[in-house]
Amino acid sequence: MSSTSGAIIKCKAAVAWGAGEAMIMEDVEVSPPQASEIRIKVVSTSLCRSDVTAWLSQAQPPLFPRIFGHEASGIVESVGEEVTEFVEGDHVLTLFIGECMNCKHCVSGKKSNICQKLGLERKGVMHSDQKTRFFIKGKPVYHYCAVSSFSEYTVVHSGCAVKITKDAPLQKVCLLSCGTAAGLGAAWNVADVSKGSTVAIFGLGTVGLSVAQAAKIRGASRIIGVDTNPEKNEKAKAFGVTDFINPNEIEESVQQVIKRITDGGVDYSFECIGDTEMVTTALQSCCDGWGVTVTLGVPKTKPEVTAHYGLFLTGRTLIGSLFGGWKPKSDLPSLIDMYLKEEIIIDDLITHNLAFKDINKAFDLMVEGKCLRCVIHMSNEC
Amino acid sequence: MSSTSGAIIKCKAAVAWGAGEAMIMEDVEVSPPQASEIRIKVVSTSLCRSDVTAWLSQAQPPLFPRIFGHEASGIVESVGEEVTEFVEGDHVLTLFIGECMNCKHCVSGKKSNICQKLGLERKGVMHSDQKTRFFIKGKPVYHYCAVSSFSEYTVVHSGCAVKITKDAPLQKVCLLSCGTAAGLGAAWNVADVSKGSTVAIFGLGTVGLSVAQAAKIRGASRIIGVDTNPEKNEKAKAFGVTDFINPNEIEESVQQVIKRITDGGVDYSFECIGDTEMVTTALQSCCDGWGVTVTLGVPKTKPEVTAHYGLFLTGRTLIGSLFGGWKPKSDLPSLIDMYLKEEIIIDDLITHNLAFKDINKAFDLMVEGKCLRCVIHMSNEC
Repeated sequence: MSSTSGAIIKCKAAVAWGAGEAMIMEDVEVSPPQASEIRIKVVSTSLCRSDVTAWLSQAQPPLFPRIFGHEASGIVESVGEEVTEFVEGDHVLTLFIGECMNCKHCVSGKKSNICQKLGLERKGVMHSDQKTRFFIKGKPVYHYCAVSSFSEYTVVHSGCAVKITKDAPLQKVCLLSCGTAAGLGAAWNVADVSKGSTVAIFGLGTVGLSVAQAAKIRGASRIIGVDTNPEKNEKAKAFGVTDFINPNEIEESVQQVIKRITDGGVDYSFECIGDTEMVTTALQSCCDGWGVTVTLGVPKTKPEVTAHYGLFLTGRTLIGSLFGGWKPKSDLPSLIDMYLKEEIIIDDLITHNLAFKDINKAFDLMVEGKCLRCVIHMSNEC
Repeated sequence: MSSTSGAIIKCKAAVAWGAGEAMIMEDVEVSPPQASEIRIKVVSTSLCRSDVTAWLSQAQPPLFPRIFGHEASGIVESVGEEVTEFVEGDHVLTLFIGECMNCKHCVSGKKSNICQKLGLERKGVMHSDQKTRFFIKGKPVYHYCAVSSFSEYTVVHSGCAVKITKDAPLQKVCLLSCGTAAGLGAAWNVADVSKGSTVAIFGLGTVGLSVAQAAKIRGASRIIGVDTNPEKNEKAKAFGVTDFINPNEIEESVQQVIKRITDGGVDYSFECIGDTEMVTTALQSCCDGWGVTVTLGVPKTKPEVTAHYGLFLTGRTLIGSLFGGWKPKSDLPSLIDMYLKEEIIIDDLITHNLAFKDINKAFDLMVEGKCLRCVIHMSNEC
């Protein structure tokens, strides 16, 4: 048993005190794990666009002070009562949607990953008791997605972490905790992209490029990437994008170009921006008859998707993808294996490695659109 | 060869001269069929809600004078050049969406029934030459869906008719030409309703009741019917509806009731009204994780479907169904067989049999919501 087991841990955490305000490195108290919980020493954590969306309080109410971060790797420091699947020293990835293995959805045998007990947590607390495990001078600090990895230590439900092999480099595989896995799964599990098919991807960030590599692995014949950042063009090729469209550089609408060059529209389109207007464009870019649009993004502003009924009547399908349809605990180890066998790319999605103390730089880079993934290393060594 | 072959036929047709104006029985000239066309002596034709929607010019521009009707049975009177699959005397059903057997979609091997050559015709003319085959004193009269069955004779493309066995009673099976097949196919081909599943159906007209019987045949455990007409309750039971909800008789919202009685929402919901607001309600009535909403109706007013992105992100799918996903020429004969083997119900969907001369009564009944299917018999015998 670790020397800290059962005791409050005092450590550093990046605390956001208000919408869009720079994080401040605070001394926080992290409670010991309660029943069915584990406490994790975070090793590496990457910044996802949805952290930024929540930090800016876009399309969601402000909740501060708060510790963000949900895409992380770490080592189990201690376990609470009733925890049997983890022991101290286990390597883990955190899960922003958990898998309780007991609820109607987890036992359904169906494709659902919408665990009814450990689903997306939006109130800034733990699922079990609606309380926090972080305090500053005794005052509670809100969690984010029941993960809060921008802290040297964090507490999560044992259903919100997955044990991984110690062969996997924690400094890299944290990306599978959210964005990369979300993109791969959207193409494989949700759309089920087929060999020879055509694909359009709106937004070539980490998620979009992961969709691209997944489509390439499936043998898609044409992968059209859409992004307003011209620098994405070159990068995208390595992930399988065959055609790059910059909406600012064309005279027609994006959907017109896509329909023209694909003789009626693509087989699959993916909205990876978090823009409901673009969901409509993605639907319009799909072909009649069997076109499938997958929406992955978390909208920053208008939360309503609007589309003419005729798009559906002529055979299009709109489907959502949360974490790529993966059942997180059951499925993530297989993605780790694929990475270790060099079957999927993660490393090239990491554009920046930052020390924890420089975490605000990661937020700046994301807001400015100058990064894919910034990985923040808690050791401050990178 | 019939005595009329190659000549103009003068016959009676019910002509609409303006939006919502009663049809007038006119003497029309029906051109001989051109290449790849056939001329049909209509036997029976039922009135579908979409005829009424177009007649009222709801959500579509007015196009008059026009001959409506698209759900019909008949006998081939003569065939144009290049027609090899039909001969005079063949029994047929008309098809409001055709199957050319040659286009990208027809040969795709995929589920699409969106024929690129003979798809839904909206301009009131024939697909081939954008002209009409009906005239009154030499002046053209618009078609409807390239079928126009409210005429004693009509001309359709040979891809817009399907040959059926002479064992099938033409006075009944005309319902398979649109509404009944649309409902059956939405459940079987599009949603693929599974045994033991739960289903909600919005709108218990001919289409909705056909969805219900299809879900019952698949072994759905609970079939919830939603309709504001209390008289539908009793009728619906025969088609498999297990729970009837009248939105006017409940204090909660429909989606609240459905989610409560099904522990989180149904597996499949079907919008059979033609109301985009109700598509949203249908989505909200589905369960997280694997809920599927099928939209079948043609909206009378607001054509935009609007729904919160969260409904998709938590695992719902929205998919459209035109003619139930059936490939019309390829698939309809199997439905005729099922009817003849008494495996599907058609007769009980026919609430009224009317003589052609009384066709306006059918429109009145549909507008007043007092019928399921009115079958109009061209012989004036019923």
